[in-house]
Order: sequence, then C-alpha cells, then structure tokens
Amino acid sequence: MNNTFGRYLTVTLFGESHGPAVGAVIDGMPAGVRIDEEYIQRQMAKRRSFSAVSTPRAEADVPEFLSGVKDGFTEGTPVALIIRNNNVRRSDYAASAGIPRPGHADYTGRMKYLGYEDQSGGGHFSGRLTAPLTAAGAVILHMLEEKGILIGSHILEAAGIRDTAFSEENMTEEIGKVNDMLFAVLDEEAQEKMLEAIQNAAADNDSVGGILETAVTGLPAGLGEPFFDSAESLIAHGMFSIPAVKGISFGTGFGLASMRGSEANDPFVIRNGRVETETNHNGGINGGITNGMPVLFQTVIKPTPSIAKAQRSVNLETMQETDLVIHGRHDPAVIHRARVVADSMTAFVIADLLLQRYGELWFTEKKK
Amino acid sequence: MNNTFGRYLTVTLFGESHGPAVGAVIDGMPAGVRIDEEYIQRQMAKRRSFSAVSTPRAEADVPEFLSGVKDGFTEGTPVALIIRNNNVRRSDYAASAGIPRPGHADYTGRMKYLGYEDQSGGGHFSGRLTAPLTAAGAVILHMLEEKGILIGSHILEAAGIRDTAFSEENMTEEIGKVNDMLFAVLDEEAQEKMLEAIQNAAADNDSVGGILETAVTGLPAGLGEPFFDSAESLIAHGMFSIPAVKGISFGTGFGLASMRGSEANDPFVIRNGRVETETNHNGGINGGITNGMPVLFQTVIKPTPSIAKAQRSVNLETMQETDLVIHGRHDPAVIHRARVVADSMTAFVIADLLLQRYGELWFTEKKK
Amino acid sequence: MNNTFGRYLTVTLFGESHGPAVGAVIDGMPAGVRIDEEYIQRQMAKRRSFSAVSTPRAEADVPEFLSGVKDGFTEGTPVALIIRNNNVRRSDYAASAGIPRPGHADYTGRMKYLGYEDQSGGGHFSGRLTAPLTAAGAVILHMLEEKGILIGSHILEAAGIRDTAFSEENMTEEIGKVNDMLFAVLDEEAQEKMLEAIQNAAADNDSVGGILETAVTGLPAGLGEPFFDSAESLIAHGMFSIPAVKGISFGTGFGLASMRGSEANDPFVIRNGRVETETNHNGGINGGITNGMPVLFQTVIKPTPSIAKAQRSVNLETMQETDLVIHGRHDPAVIHRARVVADSMTAFVIADLLLQRYGELWFTEKKK
Amino acid sequence: MNNTFGRYLTVTLFGESHGPAVGAVIDGMPAGVRIDEEYIQRQMAKRRSFSAVSTPRAEADVPEFLSGVKDGFTEGTPVALIIRNNNVRRSDYAASAGIPRPGHADYTGRMKYLGYEDQSGGGHFSGRLTAPLTAAGAVILHMLEEKGILIGSHILEAAGIRDTAFSEENMTEEIGKVNDMLFAVLDEEAQEKMLEAIQNAAADNDSVGGILETAVTGLPAGLGEPFFDSAESLIAHGMFSIPAVKGISFGTGFGLASMRGSEANDPFVIRNGRVETETNHNGGINGGITNGMPVLFQTVIKPTPSIAKAQRSVNLETMQETDLVIHGRHDPAVIHRARVVADSMTAFVIADLLLQRYGELWFTEKKK
Repeated sequence: MNNTFGRYLTVTLFGESHGPAVGAVIDGMPAGVRIDEEYIQRQMAKRRSFSAVSTPRAEADVPEFLSGVKDGFTEGTPVALIIRNNNVRRSDYAASAGIPRPGHADYTGRMKYLGYEDQSGGGHFSGRLTAPLTAAGAVILHMLEEKGILIGSHILEAAGIRDTAFSEENMTEEIGKVNDMLFAVLDEEAQEKMLEAIQNAAADNDSVGGILETAVTGLPAGLGEPFFDSAESLIAHGMFSIPAVKGISFGTGFGLASMRGSEANDPFVIRNGRVETETNHNGGINGGITNGMPVLFQTVIKPTPSIAKAQRSVNLETMQETDLVIHGRHDPAVIHRARVVADSMTAFVIADLLLQRYGELWFTEKKK
Repeated sequence: MNNTFGRYLTVTLFGESHGPAVGAVIDGMPAGVRIDEEYIQRQMAKRRSFSAVSTPRAEADVPEFLSGVKDGFTEGTPVALIIRNNNVRRSDYAASAGIPRPGHADYTGRMKYLGYEDQSGGGHFSGRLTAPLTAAGAVILHMLEEKGILIGSHILEAAGIRDTAFSEENMTEEIGKVNDMLFAVLDEEAQEKMLEAIQNAAADNDSVGGILETAVTGLPAGLGEPFFDSAESLIAHGMFSIPAVKGISFGTGFGLASMRGSEANDPFVIRNGRVETETNHNGGINGGITNGMPVLFQTVIKPTPSIAKAQRSVNLETMQETDLVIHGRHDPAVIHRARVVADSMTAFVIADLLLQRYGELWFTEKKK
Repeated sequence: MNNTFGRYLTVTLFGESHGPAVGAVIDGMPAGVRIDEEYIQRQMAKRRSFSAVSTPRAEADVPEFLSGVKDGFTEGTPVALIIRNNNVRRSDYAASAGIPRPGHADYTGRMKYLGYEDQSGGGHFSGRLTAPLTAAGAVILHMLEEKGILIGSHILEAAGIRDTAFSEENMTEEIGKVNDMLFAVLDEEAQEKMLEAIQNAAADNDSVGGILETAVTGLPAGLGEPFFDSAESLIAHGMFSIPAVKGISFGTGFGLASMRGSEANDPFVIRNGRVETETNHNGGINGGITNGMPVLFQTVIKPTPSIAKAQRSVNLETMQETDLVIHGRHDPAVIHRARVVADSMTAFVIADLLLQRYGELWFTEKKK
Repeated sequence: MNNTFGRYLTVTLFGESHGPAVGAVIDGMPAGVRIDEEYIQRQMAKRRSFSAVSTPRAEADVPEFLSGVKDGFTEGTPVALIIRNNNVRRSDYAASAGIPRPGHADYTGRMKYLGYEDQSGGGHFSGRLTAPLTAAGAVILHMLEEKGILIGSHILEAAGIRDTAFSEENMTEEIGKVNDMLFAVLDEEAQEKMLEAIQNAAADNDSVGGILETAVTGLPAGLGEPFFDSAESLIAHGMFSIPAVKGISFGTGFGLASMRGSEANDPFVIRNGRVETETNHNGGINGGITNGMPVLFQTVIKPTPSIAKAQRSVNLETMQETDLVIHGRHDPAVIHRARVVADSMTAFVIADLLLQRYGELWFTEKKK
C-alpha cells in the first residue's frame, strides 16, 4: 500500500509525468458529499504555473471523474479521477539519461527500480503527481469547510525573506485571505521582496526554497492517538510525501528546544465558557491529540532541485564524474505551488481522523 | 491499528503507567534472529533514570518474553514482551484529578476517552510506555547491526547548549561512542554545560528541551517510496509517536529554506568505485528513497511538561480557572532518555523497509 | 500484520502452546465499554475440555488483563490480556521431533520457520491460541449484546449426525439456548448420538469432524462493502484463521449451486412495517452488505489431526518414510470447543463493521 | 481501504456499470515484470459474453494502461488501467427504480449509501467491475507463470450437472486445457449437458448457478500465516469479493465433516526425493501454510440474480409489496465468466504471499 495514504479515508496515487495520465482514487469516501467543481478549479489554479516565477509548462489540468460521483454528489463508492498529460516534451530529458540530476530522484529511482523506471520528466517522482492530489484534496477540503473546518497555508519564508505568521486573533480571516491568493503571503511587502528574490534566482539559473505555515481551525478536541497515529504523526507522514519537503514542526517547533517547561506549557484558560489555552506553543496538539485550539505547523520546502546551472554528477554507465547541464522547463521556486498540496494532504488527515471518531455517516448530507 | 506501527514489521504497544504491566508485540518478525539479552539490558539502562538529571523512580525494567523466542532465537511468530509496573505510587496523582496539567495530555485524554481514561501517572500517555518500545527496539537494533546497519543518536542541543554534529568522516566511530554513553554528547565540554543547565532548571522546579541528531549508516540505496511511504514519511511517523517530539528535519533541514538549489543539491561523485554525494544536505534521502549515504535527521524534544512550579489551569468540573502545583517525581529533562527511543523507532522503520525489499528470509540465520 | 485481524477494531494474537503465556491485544477498542468478568468466564468454560469427549488437559484459563481496563470499563486504550501456560508437559512431544504429524502444521511450520519454530504442543499453531481469542471475543460479544446484537453457533453436524438447523421463527431463543450449553446441539437426540459417535472414535484412537452453524441477529442493514471487504469476505477471513476450518458457506451455501435464480432470490416483503425477505437463501447478505435479516453461515471443521492411531509419515532428517504413533493428550473432537471461537471471530467482524459505520463513540456508555 | 485488496501487492478497484469507466490500480508491483498484451486479451475474452449462454452486451474491453508500464515492462510504480463503458443503455433500468431486485444489491446499496448510489446497471455492484479485475489479474497470472506457478479453474458443477474433478496425475495438463477454453469443463459430455441446461433456464427466463474448482500448482511450501492471514483466509477473502460467490471450501471441504482423522490426515511420503502427501484432503494447506502440494478449492456461485421472470418485491417509496419484471440484458449463467475472475483473485493472493517471502526484487527480470 505504498501509494495509498490514510486509514479510514484513503487516497491512492498513480501516474508518470510523461505517461498517458496521472490520477487518484479516493476510497472510504462518504456518500452524499457535494462536489463543487468551481472550488476544485480554484484549487487547481493555485497549483498551476504562476507568471514569471513558475515553469511555462501549462496544463489545462481539468480532472475527469471516472467514478463515485453522480448528480454532483459522491455515491459512497471510490472516487477515481484522472488528468491527461497533454503537454509532454519527452526530448528534453533524453540527453541526460544515465546522468542523475543532483538533489533529484534520478539516482535513487534507478537504484530502486533497476532501470525500469520512467525517467522522463521525473516519471513517478514528478511534481506533476501533485495535480491529482490537489484535485482529490479539493474534494476533501470542501467537505471539511461544510463542517466549519478551515485549512490554509501561506509562505512564511522564501529565499530568506520572512512573512508575518498567522495571528491568533484573526486566523480565520487570514486563512480566507491567503486561500484567495495565487502567491500566498500575508505581508504585502514581504510578498514583493520574495517575488523579486525568486526572479533573481531564476536569472542566475538557480532556485530558492522556503517554509510554509499551515493552520487548521474549527477542529474538535479529541482527534488522534497517543501511539502511533498521533495527529502529528499522520500529518507529518502526509507532508513528507510532498516532493521537496525536508522538515516539519508543530507550534513553536524547533524553538521549543531552548525554552523551559514553564514557558512551553500552554496554560489552560476559560474563554467564552470553553476550555482554551492561553498560548499555543504546542500547535493545538497535546499527547498526539487535538486540544481544540488551531493546529499549526511549519513545513520546509528545499530549493527546487531542477536548475539550469551546470552541476557535477556521474555517468552511471561509465562510472565517471561529469558535468551536467539540464535543459527543459524549470521552476525557480515551487513553494507557492506546494502550499495547495500541503492543504490537501492536511485535509486527508483531518477527514480520516473525523471518520474514525464519528463514522462514515457524519459527512453525508440528508437526502431531500 | 492505532497502537500498531509498521507495514511489514509491526510493533503493537499497550499499557498504562500505573496499570499491571506495559508491553509490546513484534509481528512480522523473521525467524532465526539472535536475541542478545545483554544488548537489550544495555538499551534499557540508557532509557532509565540517570543520576541527578532524572526522576528517582527506578524500575528494574527487565522485559519478560512471553512468546516468539526459543533457545536465544526468534521463532518467526509474534514476539510479545511485558514489563511489570512495580514501583507505582498512585496517590501522587489523586490531588490534581480534574485539573489538567498544561502541556500534558490530561485534557486531550479526557476529551478523547470521555473520562474513562486512566490519568494516574499519565496512563497510556506516560513515558513509561517507551520502556517496552526500547526493549522491542533493542531486538531490532541488534538484528540490523548483524547486517552492518548502525543507528545512533546524540544530544545535539539541550537547554540552548550545542553539541558538535556528527562528522562525515568519523560517523561510524562517533555512533559507536555515543551508543556507549548514558548522556550522549560528542563534545565533553558541551556535555558538562548541559548537565549543569539541567540541574539549574531542576533547582528552579522547571525543565528543559533539546534536539536529538540521529544517524543511520550502512544502508543500501533504494529503500522507500516516492508516495506515500517515503523514508522520511515513515521515520517522521515513528518519531512523532515519541512523547514530547514536536519537530523533525532531515539533512540540513530548516536551513534549506534559505539556500539556493545550487547549494542544496548534493553533487554526485565516485568514491572507491561507488556513487556517493559530496555533501549530504538531503540527509541520505532523495525523492523519499535512500541514496546510500548516511540517513541523518534532527528531532526536537520539548521541555518535559511535568514541572513542580505552580502553573495556571482550569478545573474541568467547575469550569473555573485555578492554580496547579504538581507533586510527584519529575524529570527536568528527558532528552537523554528519549534518544534510545528515537533509535528504536528508527530501527523499526529501517527493518520494515528492508523486509519489503528483500523478504522475510533475509534476516534469518542459517540453521547449523 | 499477520497476527493482527481487523480494520477498525483489531485483535493481535501471540503465544505458543508450551511457552510462558498466550495472549491477545484488542486495539481500536472504544472507551466506556463494560467488562463483565462472569460473562468472560462462561465463554472460557465453553472452550474448555468437556468430559469424555475432550482432552484431559485442563487449564484454569483465567485471563489477566494487563491494560486498557479500569474500574470495570474499557479506557479506550489497547486491552491486553494474557493467560499463563501452567499445565505444560513438554516431554510428550520430544519423541516425534523431525517426523511431522499428518494433517497438522509440523511440516509447513518447519518449511516456513526453517527449524526455528517451537514444535512442542503445536507451538503457535496450537488450539491453545484460541483461549486468548475466546477471552478477547467475550469482551466484544458482550459489547454487541448490549446493543441488541446476538451471536451464537451450534453443531449442525458431527461424525455424520445432523442437528436441526436454526429456525427462522425462534432464532433468538435458539441462540440463547445454545449459548447456555457446553455441547451446543438443538436436538437432544442428535446430541446424544453425536456424543456416542465421538466416544466411539476415541475408543478407536481416532477423531471426528463436523459443521457449525452460526447466526447473528439484530444487525442493521448497510454493513459491508461491495469490494473487497464484503461482510462474507471479512467473516470468512476470520473463520479460516481458526485451526481445522476448511470451508464456509452463507445461507443455502453449496445448495445454491443446483438452484435456479427464481428459487434462490429471496423475495422482499413488508413485515411489521419493515422490509424483510421471505426466505433467507442469501444468509442475510446481498452484494456483500447486510440486509437486516439474520446473517447465517456454516463452517466445516475437519477431524482433529492429532490422533493416537499409527500413521504414515516421513523423517525429515533422514528423508525416509516411517510410521508415527503420537502420545500425549488429544481431543477426539474439537467442534464443540471451536464454536465459541467461531462466535468470537464473528464478533470481531461485526464490531469492526459497526465502528466503520457509526464511529468510535457509538459503543461508549454515557458517564454518570 | 475497502476497495483495496492485498497486503504486499494490492489492487484497488473503482467504477460503476454505467459511469464513464471502470478501472484498477495495482500497487506494490515489482519493477521489470513483462506485460504480455495478448495474454491479457485472452483473459478478457474468457470473461466476455459467450454465445447463447451470455448477455448480448458486448464491450470491446480493451484496458488502457495509464501508468506504471513502459516498453512492455512494469516500472515498479502503480499500474493503473481503465476500461471505458461505451455500450451503456441507461433506460433499461429507470423503470424499476425504488423497487429492489431480489437477490441483488439494490436494497443493501440503498441502505448503505442512503440513495446516493448509482443503481443503473448495478452501479458499483455490477459484474462489469470484474473486467478491470480480470485485466489486472492477467498481469499477475502471467507474472506467476514466468515463475512456474499455474492457476486454473473449471466448472465442477452447473445446473446440477457434474464435471470430473482435477486429477492428481494430470493436473498441470488439465489446467492448461481449461485455460484455453471459453466454457471450461473437463468432461465433454458434461459440457454439452451444462450448455443445454443453461439454455433451458434462459428459455424459462431463469438462471442457474454452479461450483468452480480452482487449482494452483508449482507453489513452494511455507507460504501463509497461522494467524490471521492463513492461505485459506486470504484466498477466501478474495473469492467472496466476486459477486455471486456464497461459499468456499478447500481440499475435500465439507466432505471432511463426516470423515475420521485417520482418513482426513494426508500421510507424508517421499516422492522423487521430495516430501509430498499421498492424498490431498487438505487442499495443499496445513495450519494455514502451503505444503507444496497443489492448492485446491471449490467456490459456489449462486444463480444470477437478474432474471426476466416476474418476482415479488417492495416499493421502497410507498412501502407496498409489488411484482417486479426486469427488462434488459441478463446472463442465464455467469459461472463460465466468473472463473477467470476466480483465477485473478487467486493470483493476487499468491503473488502477495510470494512478495512477503522473497521481497520485491524476486519477480524482477534482470536488465540486459
């Protein structure tokens, strides 16, 4: 079940960058969940190329639903969707065959699949695979919104430039705001500087990385397990499936290393008759279980490995060191496109936890 | 399968801090794997209380094997082991019932289990549960060592004091060195300062956190999946099951956010006729799959939530805010004890990946 | 996860016949489920030796709960229970080492575990493993009864002698009746004849087999999946885990082979304002999903393979054919003991299906 | 993971009879496995309509591979395949909406999916779903044949007429023979009588059922688990996913109920220097583990529920009893088409067991 994620709600992913199609199957999908095609298209648009800071490969990316949907509602059976790969230029990749691109999965793919893998365009490792993930994620994100659960991410840092973090007071509005943006940054000035830095990197035939901050609001307390399916474990498992993710932290994260317990422990308080915590250093999760506060985490995205600059590598046939120059289409940054994938993976985990808790009928709309 | 971790090799965990016993069941265990009881005892000793910087609750912690082991070898059937809880002082916990300890799982446990949970000593959330994990982990760590795969962790940071990182040149020796230490720090001076800082925190009725660095050497390339069971996903899933872990990063981790692709991409080189990478910013993993370089990651451990200092909390019966002073036995730091648990969780993942690759006979010793 | 059964509610089994203990871990167990120790003891008694027709090995078989239970209710954490093996006579088995008993798992165990397996008393293959299964099953059976769901089995056939089948009209009473019996046969005369036939087989140093009929009443419609987790698939998966089971059929079963569609299709009717079927040839399941009628199935139990009669086998060391006479304690029939195991496995499946449908809070008793 | 079957090798199924497409995803697929398109077509042909005894709906049924295959070999990534539904006549089904067909899944589908299900053509319950299963199964059957493992089924009984069983001496030839037939019966005379009986049933607007016998040869000993994943458990789980299957038995099956242990125990003998059993009452499996003898089992297929004859049912809107006459295309028998599905499900289980044993590299062809 390598390419299947989830326990109660699962998503299975398939496809290669330059194969006939990429796709996903959602199983454990409750019946009677509304499919909002506009919502899906908005999510797909956020994942797509964005002006000067993204690759010029533009796919229409309209998912075709093959099963599990009828008259605008899920049927309760598996929802399969595919996206055809139309804009494929195989020749870009022929030259470097046998010379693995540094930072990319060419070498490990070869070691794992023994030469049977499709290297063209990154094959199964390609960011292209996140297109069906985004489409499937949109179905789930919308289902959660109908239950008052909101998920959103912004670029907390890119190319060393820092955005302001989500604020506790206006988090819901801020999530709404960034969810309407193509380049999701809370602070306008930071946004401008990031775009400039990315263009500078592009001009240098290079790329940049960054950090996403993701928030989930509206969650009930009591979701997750002490062992081994803590809310953090499940979210991290999902996040590390996104290409280029190399780290994740919850709440104050690595900052907790230098704090004392008396600072890091979030005091319980009563607000509007509800138990809340005064601070949220623990990112809404204690002992692996949601505590009703917003779930907050940061995900580091390494700089895109595909760069046009010359790099050192080896020829696997001759076992000689060699220089490598990669032609083709490249993103100087993917973080602004990755955030919608982060939201999707988060949605899968949250829906999974809710199904465990409330059963498969909880999401079903009453039939009129 | 909440309390079961793994795919091909699984570990199931049970027990409450003040219940009759804690235990673990290893399933998918290959037959013919040597059980080294001394090795297990050394691992248990590293997890146990350590002098001035740990809680005085000392359990003998000798695991009893109930099944799956005969004449010093595994049988291939489930290995069940239990550790009795002898040194239980339930009264320490009675006073604060209904008033959740900040930073701890009392509140979320109540929300999840609706009052049926055992709060005494942290119940199922207790660090006590890591005792059988350590015993089970020792079985697997030893099995991996027989195959030339070495796992070790040291305290990269505690109370804001930094150790030197594992070096590329002497990593195997360094792992061996820290695996023989009770308070695993590479730099002697850093070790002294950390111990002092922890004692200072204890004197203040407070606690400290830190960062573990874990290394795995001797791994073949080709382990892990692009989706969704990347080596990073599986390791992170396991690590976040350890109480107090709030973040994990691989290789250069969050530092990758401000690097450019040309710096972050590890160039491939030929060394001794083998493909290696010159740097290891990716922590031995590309595209979710091991590349044959050491797997390297950092795990942040938050300061122990149980502190003797007065804290603010709420009374869940009266829904009033109140002050809370926790009596009982507390650790001013757990990071030095957590590292053996980190090694154990890592071992489960590595063994699981190897079983997928090579099948259940790979670890079996030839019968004479 | 070989020794773990279930999806939402799981049971993990461990132990060898002559090892220190056998045991089980129930995970996914809802919190707030009442544990009735007398109920458990009654189930254990039904599994135990029965007079002249069972082995004289009598174990006290009182399960010790190690975790997950407090003050008579489940905590929501894993319920681990063990049963010590006290009455062990290893010497009975030494003689035949290397000469596999026909019909038993000695040979296949050797092929699988390569000589590392514990052959004594059947090791992990022993019927002894059904003791913790029965104890765990009792917890679940009782939980289901509190929700009005009743499970019971009787010996439909033994040694060629036929009992009357469950009747549609009085099924609930009949289940109640057989659940109070140690040798569960509806027809008194058939019972007598079966006991006699079993004693005759024992006198011949031989053994007999039979067929169990199991019924489940009180189930809601809508449980199960078209693919691949049909109610029949899950039940069959569980039943074939019981040693000696070699076949299972639902409703009219193999009799359907010679019927026509117009006979086999159960017409829908309205009874007391509810949709029911007039006949129940489909055993309460259509398209893999429960239809609200009683679930009915038959399980064939082969004659106990351990017999005292001389048999032909081979010596695996010398690869010579040889005769084998097995000493030790043997059951001339196990079907009367197996039925409580069949009930337990059925209970695991039914609870699992209900958890999927209604979530983990459905079984929780409201806290006073 | 309801619509996903398997542990190491998984198949995920999706689609509705009258939706855009049906399809399957094979995951855990080893790299470097040859895809033989002619082989696949032969299997698809066997599943398709057959002359007078099958429905006239004829689909081209050519699977399109969307991923995981390149240059005639698997890549090691998920193999997704779809089959478009071209020949759809939705109007046939409109009339009976709200009146469930007896013996079919209309009623249980409604109870499960609460009216959101696609009833047209049976929706997700349709035999149409077995088309992608057959295509996926063909990939695996061919992979197993390359390793010398042969799977085949024939109609042991249909409409009460009995074929001869597979013989021990010529089993491999017999499997080869039936695998080349569209209506797989060993005895020519029995075949003729069956075809006649099916045509008679069709003339009566009725349908017939039967029993399949399946054999697997060339299997190594040592595959399967004592608990809970016995070879029988896994095969039965798969078989009960095939629509219309209501029972399964291994070896002598229900006949074992009236045998004595001394008859049912298969004596071990030495043949050609190998350990074999003289008889095969246990169907090649002892203690849940293969013993190296052919695996043999029987599966009962109930008469096709869709018949043209008038039947009694209820109107779910008015809750009144009513008569139902179903128009449209129906099979008077499906057993001859089901057998290739039985072979496919068996292949999934066998491949899964081999991957557990020998790892994911075992099936990979050496790259030239």
